[in-house]
Amino acid sequence: MHNSIKNIAFAGAGNVAWHLAKGLQAKGYQVKNIWSRDYANALALAGSCGAIAYNSISELREEADLIIVAVADDSIADVARSIGEYEGIVVHTAGSVHLHALKNFFKNCGVFYPLQTFSKGIPLNLEEVPFFLEASSDEVLQLVRHLALNLSAKVYEADSEKRMLLHVAAVFAGNYSNLMYIIGDEILKNSNLPPDLMHPLITETTRKALSGDPLKTQTGPARRHDTATIEKHLQALAALPDYAELYRLLARLISNKY
Amino acid sequence: MHNSIKNIAFAGAGNVAWHLAKGLQAKGYQVKNIWSRDYANALALAGSCGAIAYNSISELREEADLIIVAVADDSIADVARSIGEYEGIVVHTAGSVHLHALKNFFKNCGVFYPLQTFSKGIPLNLEEVPFFLEASSDEVLQLVRHLALNLSAKVYEADSEKRMLLHVAAVFAGNYSNLMYIIGDEILKNSNLPPDLMHPLITETTRKALSGDPLKTQTGPARRHDTATIEKHLQALAALPDYAELYRLLARLISNKY
Repeated sequence: MHNSIKNIAFAGAGNVAWHLAKGLQAKGYQVKNIWSRDYANALALAGSCGAIAYNSISELREEADLIIVAVADDSIADVARSIGEYEGIVVHTAGSVHLHALKNFFKNCGVFYPLQTFSKGIPLNLEEVPFFLEASSDEVLQLVRHLALNLSAKVYEADSEKRMLLHVAAVFAGNYSNLMYIIGDEILKNSNLPPDLMHPLITETTRKALSGDPLKTQTGPARRHDTATIEKHLQALAALPDYAELYRLLARLISNKY
Repeated sequence: MHNSIKNIAFAGAGNVAWHLAKGLQAKGYQVKNIWSRDYANALALAGSCGAIAYNSISELREEADLIIVAVADDSIADVARSIGEYEGIVVHTAGSVHLHALKNFFKNCGVFYPLQTFSKGIPLNLEEVPFFLEASSDEVLQLVRHLALNLSAKVYEADSEKRMLLHVAAVFAGNYSNLMYIIGDEILKNSNLPPDLMHPLITETTRKALSGDPLKTQTGPARRHDTATIEKHLQALAALPDYAELYRLLARLISNKY
């Protein structure tokens, strides 16, 4: 292990790798090599950040001080094993994968978890992204923290248990709030209404929740215990039984809070 | 019925009445009188928009060209009945209440539904709010539309059926996405983590959904069919069985879409 991180390699070329590789390159790090199970993806990312795409994962060790494993959660252990013996630092970027998944293979390892939703090709300011770190030793933690602080102003430590809870909370606040937008869109499209009619409501709901406490800014029939309106809505959803079931469950969860 | 609307009265002094009364006053309308079941609320709103609070609802007819009934959905019919005989226009502001609720009592009536989440004391730009109108006649519609266009650039017609579907979609996109924020907060607070860690994720999720299609910008374990992560999250939620049940349902709904 070197006493600073300059050269970085990526295992994975998906949404997270894409944003981290470009962000690190912009901060002056050398992104040397990219490997991906899908070579075309590795080539595309390598091309856009001045790196070289590798076909074989074991080659990643050659020049890197740090290998960032940014692949699907259930592939992390397999990918880590394929890297082979390595004295540098290996980190993964997953919210819900224990550090053990790397510790089994590497002396110097850690977690570098950005709590954010990443989509390839949609630009994002990494400086606003909270990073949660964990490491196999204080020495590794120092090096990884230095890297994280070059990317973001919001760098925290979190052990694997805490990180999992952060990820669960993020699924609700991010993925599942987005599902609510999808369902709203579907209901409008079913009635030939344009989805952007909902945009001012979505903007305002989020603005209020972020500037206060969403428990206090909640509105709507369930908060008012307005069972007559809830029943009418369930009837209106008769043709969409999955959404009717969901509506009922969510109305009950809200009602119970007030 | 006069051939223009100048003087306006409100039955109700809740979140919607609060924003409409202040918005109409700002546009030069005379908000004359406010009645509310809770006289203190009527007094507070009247005081803040130069109106007079009335104790008796039947007095609202005296000076108004238009009475706006902005009360809880299940009180609209009762409140309308209490207004008494009236030649002017009466509108309600509810998404899920049929125009019939007013037609039973008034020749000139309509619906003036702002699709937005309103909280007293939280300022809001009404010009961005979509208003959905319905009326008992073309004449009433013209007058109400003129009023709406003075408040907002987004004025549409929608019959009672369409308006109900808009309201159902708004419950999902607004109230239920906000519930997801509440749940995320609760999970963080249970682990002594500050809720504002989620803010960049919420901001970004919403930004992506509004600038594209939320079905395309969805991320997370359910979209990736990552059942191992989903099972870990369900275990992490073991102490919160309601949320575990909800997590499972929402993960299934997302998985089915990809």
